[in-house]
Amino acid sequence: MTKTALKKRIDTAAGRIPADLVIQNAKVINVYGGTMIEGDIAITDGCVVGIGAYEGIHTYDAKGKFAAPGFIDSHIHIESAYVTPEEIGRLLVPRGGTTIIADPHEIVNVKGLEALTYMLEAAEETVLDIRYMLPSCVPATPFEHAGASIGATEIEKALTDKRILGLGEFMDFPGVVGATEFALDRLIAAHEAGVPIDGHSPGLSGLALNAYAAAGISTDHECTTVEGMQERIAQGMYILMRNGSACHDLEALLAGVTPENSTRCLLCSDDRQPKTILERGHLDDHLRICVRHGLDPITAIRMATLNAANCFGLSDRGAIAPGLRADIVLLDDLTDFRVSQVFIAGELVADEGEYLPPVTRRDSSAMESSFHVKDFSAQKLKLQLNSDKVHVIDILPGGIATGKGTADIKRGPDGDFMRDAAVDIVKLAVVERHQNTGNVAVALLRGYGIQAGAVALSIAHDSHNIITAGITDADMAFAVETLIAMGGGVVLVKDGVVLESMPLPIGGIMSKESGQWVDERLTAIHEVAHQELGISGDVEPLMTLCFMSLPVIPELKLTDMGLFDVTVFDFVDLETE
Amino acid sequence: MTKTALKKRIDTAAGRIPADLVIQNAKVINVYGGTMIEGDIAITDGCVVGIGAYEGIHTYDAKGKFAAPGFIDSHIHIESAYVTPEEIGRLLVPRGGTTIIADPHEIVNVKGLEALTYMLEAAEETVLDIRYMLPSCVPATPFEHAGASIGATEIEKALTDKRILGLGEFMDFPGVVGATEFALDRLIAAHEAGVPIDGHSPGLSGLALNAYAAAGISTDHECTTVEGMQERIAQGMYILMRNGSACHDLEALLAGVTPENSTRCLLCSDDRQPKTILERGHLDDHLRICVRHGLDPITAIRMATLNAANCFGLSDRGAIAPGLRADIVLLDDLTDFRVSQVFIAGELVADEGEYLPPVTRRDSSAMESSFHVKDFSAQKLKLQLNSDKVHVIDILPGGIATGKGTADIKRGPDGDFMRDAAVDIVKLAVVERHQNTGNVAVALLRGYGIQAGAVALSIAHDSHNIITAGITDADMAFAVETLIAMGGGVVLVKDGVVLESMPLPIGGIMSKESGQWVDERLTAIHEVAHQELGISGDVEPLMTLCFMSLPVIPELKLTDMGLFDVTVFDFVDLETE
Repeated sequence: MTKTALKKRIDTAAGRIPADLVIQNAKVINVYGGTMIEGDIAITDGCVVGIGAYEGIHTYDAKGKFAAPGFIDSHIHIESAYVTPEEIGRLLVPRGGTTIIADPHEIVNVKGLEALTYMLEAAEETVLDIRYMLPSCVPATPFEHAGASIGATEIEKALTDKRILGLGEFMDFPGVVGATEFALDRLIAAHEAGVPIDGHSPGLSGLALNAYAAAGISTDHECTTVEGMQERIAQGMYILMRNGSACHDLEALLAGVTPENSTRCLLCSDDRQPKTILERGHLDDHLRICVRHGLDPITAIRMATLNAANCFGLSDRGAIAPGLRADIVLLDDLTDFRVSQVFIAGELVADEGEYLPPVTRRDSSAMESSFHVKDFSAQKLKLQLNSDKVHVIDILPGGIATGKGTADIKRGPDGDFMRDAAVDIVKLAVVERHQNTGNVAVALLRGYGIQAGAVALSIAHDSHNIITAGITDADMAFAVETLIAMGGGVVLVKDGVVLESMPLPIGGIMSKESGQWVDERLTAIHEVAHQELGISGDVEPLMTLCFMSLPVIPELKLTDMGLFDVTVFDFVDLETE
Repeated sequence: MTKTALKKRIDTAAGRIPADLVIQNAKVINVYGGTMIEGDIAITDGCVVGIGAYEGIHTYDAKGKFAAPGFIDSHIHIESAYVTPEEIGRLLVPRGGTTIIADPHEIVNVKGLEALTYMLEAAEETVLDIRYMLPSCVPATPFEHAGASIGATEIEKALTDKRILGLGEFMDFPGVVGATEFALDRLIAAHEAGVPIDGHSPGLSGLALNAYAAAGISTDHECTTVEGMQERIAQGMYILMRNGSACHDLEALLAGVTPENSTRCLLCSDDRQPKTILERGHLDDHLRICVRHGLDPITAIRMATLNAANCFGLSDRGAIAPGLRADIVLLDDLTDFRVSQVFIAGELVADEGEYLPPVTRRDSSAMESSFHVKDFSAQKLKLQLNSDKVHVIDILPGGIATGKGTADIKRGPDGDFMRDAAVDIVKLAVVERHQNTGNVAVALLRGYGIQAGAVALSIAHDSHNIITAGITDADMAFAVETLIAMGGGVVLVKDGVVLESMPLPIGGIMSKESGQWVDERLTAIHEVAHQELGISGDVEPLMTLCFMSLPVIPELKLTDMGLFDVTVFDFVDLETE
């Protein structure tokens, strides 16, 4: 800050010169003290200078509305909304989001650090302040092929960029607990840079959790129980309470929030699709849930603001107070948390749900052409089983975890799996698409309900290979080939005909279109998935497959290298005996 | 941290190798969650690695005691205990102090940045972790002469030293609110360095307080009312609740602590003399007071630990949790907070009140010879008053603030003040001692009660000129001359005879002796002051004079340049008309 700017700030705060903007007649939420202050908010050079009686060059009448600090989403993957940073800004800002801590590990898994550069540049096109955590585990594990591999040297270099807040979720938690070279090198790079490290430790407890915390990891967004939450808080970890499209842990965790520990609790989306955002909102939705579960509204707002700022060292925001960025959300009430206006750095940027700034987009052409698949054919989908007794991946509706089940199946004369229409088990395949390895891994999936055709998609966390499930090898192969031809996305086929599709040209995982467009495509796809392909009503047809390849979420997963048992963190045979 | 060290930490936390030390059978205070955990604390390389069931190379049986994080005093002036950093460590550690945030502005006012170097070096001789804030206002105001002047350039350079946490209390609050060049230059230096700035804003409110906060000042330890506390907390300031030897604001402020704002409240001493430490302790005394006033003990402990760590960015301490420094205090109970053992960085450093490490001391000879007084004589104590109606400095017992009073006095034929034994008004003088200016300022003091002789001392916050009060010019002059001859300290005289004294050779404000020695000297001095000189029983004879020259504490003060009205921040005539 220059001396002139500081003098102007002080002179304005002291009332000697008029403010740039005064937001009048607001009930200002004081997240530091848990109280409300009636007054005018004076803003100069994008910063709040004071609350009191002020003159302004411009004024805005808040008409008695509540003024809360701008909401900070403490952990989100933009790519999970299938849209670009510019578009996520357009979607989230009208719901009160002013800062997001984004981990771009999806696109970085596809395109490496070149993708980080693209995400940083694209972020400049939106008023939403997008701060990135550097993806720590690319690939998530050594048990899969991704489009890139980020080593400790790359991490060290990337963390010198001040736009990067810290090291992203350390998904290889067994590696941390086991103190592997992979984990140690990456952790040391973050410690040297003096930045926070996000965690990801589903189910971890006792001495293993101690080891994870002792490694210097300071957050967790995979916590789903009050017991796990209490244990993590005692370790000094912040709990990022998740309410996304697939995972809804917030409600369960609210039972564990106390006046003593509430400052250690934050709100996050993790993965939030356009439909969820358009229909239910963003952190405004989290806040509604908090208050519905009996939490004091200011405590809830503090979780969405100050706590996140503290956790990530964003000392210039998180409250409405002198010297802080004027990121302000006007709310009609503290029950429904309907957002009427949003100010970012003192500018009115959203009004009654409408994003006001012009929407411009960065060139994303470097992120296209992401398919490098060798020798794929239907032949590669065949199984040669040595036994009828096999492991099956059990779908557990409502989440992204799976069960490790067993089944007796029928085999053909060549040892291949033979589908029994009376039993809900079908083939699932992962086709490596980044490195021309020619890898195709096939396993069996129970509970998907599909009765015709096949689904293929190039969204498959986190390595984003092609994942497909279907009734016949022919339709699965056709779906994969169609997907490759269209440059990635989602495709639904039946008997050699494409029924529905959504192209995602940016890395095969993101659209160039609007959130509304994505939502319409997804709605159409879901309708076809359930009605034409017969996928069970209680199963999310795409999300279920998206996470089927993520070898850090329990229990049984499939990577391009084979069937993977997350609980023992190693591959497992398809046959049980 | 090296990779080997991190691996060892993780391996120990996971229970694969034994810890260096295990503190067994402790009830561990969890300041993050406000709960208690029964278990063993495993420590390796000076850090906690976990709480659970652990094997250790060494073990220490806590016998069911409470284990709290080491106490952090968020604001203290070591020099106010009249001892060196080595000695303050010996005094505070056995009472649970493991880190102090010290502002060495007393000695720096005398000896400049050379004194900062001495204080940094001396701090290395004690296990107490002494972190310094860089004195911001040396001299405190332009209205006095000190031994040094620290400008923005010096501040900029000194703040590159990582041992300096931030910029010390910005006492020139009118300068900040008025955005003077003096204040702006210094504030900018701190902002550029990205460090916190301590505040000092007694009585500030409304737009003026907004301006002070907008300048980026983030703490206040001068807050004395619940109303002022609430206003500051809403501004994002941390409240350092003071309980020192002279100022006892903690009790009043506790009424303002709520579950919502408690994380913004810290505990501090500011000025704490050996007597207070030896008799009542350190932050253990604060904790007793907190609990006696109904505060939950863990909330109180959090104020003495985690809150201070958060406020000053000390991310390696403040709790007992994996990865943090093993600064641990064992307490018999959570009512009396009797400290039985203290561990710092995993080493037992105090046991049942005894400081265990050997006490070594740095050479302090560069801090001696601090007197440069020109042409002093009794003649300079004479007044030439133009009126009988004068301003008097009114002593307000129990604090360091004074009142701006008026009185009708008797004048001699030469216009000099003539003492009336029936009226409790005497002369007060400040003799400049750093720069050979020859300045001597004389004023009138009411309520000191002195009936014989004179007192002189070279402790006079913050510029530490010589201050004297007495019945006759002759005894005042004799006291000043004796003080200069002995190289500084405190001297009490009567009718040309020295009754009692305490030499303070380090800068004229600190002893090379122990806290016990200082206490014995002070006890003897106080006895003589009250019994031989007749100073009022409700007046602290030395502390009252020590703060008489500090032109940032209301209401009327005396510097070497004259009588100063703090409320208008300017000099004022001795005569009222």
